[in-house]
Amino acid sequence: MDEFMQAAIDEAEQGLKEGGIPIGSVLVYQGKIIGRGHNLRIQKKSAILHGEMAALEHAGRQPASVYRNSTLYTTLSPCPMCSGAIRLYQIPRVIIGENQTFLGDEEMLKASGVEIEVLQNAKCISLMEQLKDSSPELWNEDIGEE
Amino acid sequence: MDEFMQAAIDEAEQGLKEGGIPIGSVLVYQGKIIGRGHNLRIQKKSAILHGEMAALEHAGRQPASVYRNSTLYTTLSPCPMCSGAIRLYQIPRVIIGENQTFLGDEEMLKASGVEIEVLQNAKCISLMEQLKDSSPELWNEDIGEE
Repeated sequence: MDEFMQAAIDEAEQGLKEGGIPIGSVLVYQGKIIGRGHNLRIQKKSAILHGEMAALEHAGRQPASVYRNSTLYTTLSPCPMCSGAIRLYQIPRVIIGENQTFLGDEEMLKASGVEIEVLQNAKCISLMEQLKDSSPELWNEDIGEE
Repeated sequence: MDEFMQAAIDEAEQGLKEGGIPIGSVLVYQGKIIGRGHNLRIQKKSAILHGEMAALEHAGRQPASVYRNSTLYTTLSPCPMCSGAIRLYQIPRVIIGENQTFLGDEEMLKASGVEIEVLQNAKCISLMEQLKDSSPELWNEDIGEE
């Protein structure tokens, strides 16, 4: 297991411990994690702090050159909002834990020139399957579904 | 002047008073503002709190049915991240103060079925022109440009 995807999974599991949605993410620049976070919908009553957004927020203000040489790791396929953030900052590479339980805007990312790798990691899948089984209404809220 | 666009401009001007980037937004549901905010890059060292994102965050956790019957007002054409958030939550209508100083992801929004109205409001344009003249590097940072 890549240490960075492991860090994203650690974030997802931390979210689960907090009673939250188990999705985590880390932003990696020059071989180091410069931002990390997990979904905070429940913990902060947040509509925008998905895992990827939390990692970007934690990284703070960065120049364009940093984003353009970074890799974003996320345990789940990025939704339209998070994909839009990836496009805004022109992050060139995204490593995705899995896209079996939810398929985000990967086609648009690819069309924008973003390199994508999907791992279909069993732990990432299991975390999301548990959430969708136990709290389908919460998951629907997180992705704007009825 | 529509009271909601005026409220978005008030937010932008509040941001300017705080030394921030002058872009504001309000989310309107059933004739009432349920979320409002302005760009907080400088004030909160935030990479994700654009005006529209701040308004969504301020609205808090909402069910899909609220977003799908809301209108988002923003003083500036929404960037890819904010457009992604509009798509995630399927907000059907976006009123834009202006798109002369920056053209965001309007084509994608339209392709996703979002109704867009652009006002080319002189105050919105003037706020952005001042920012771009006085702090071009800050504006570039906000839109992920070198």
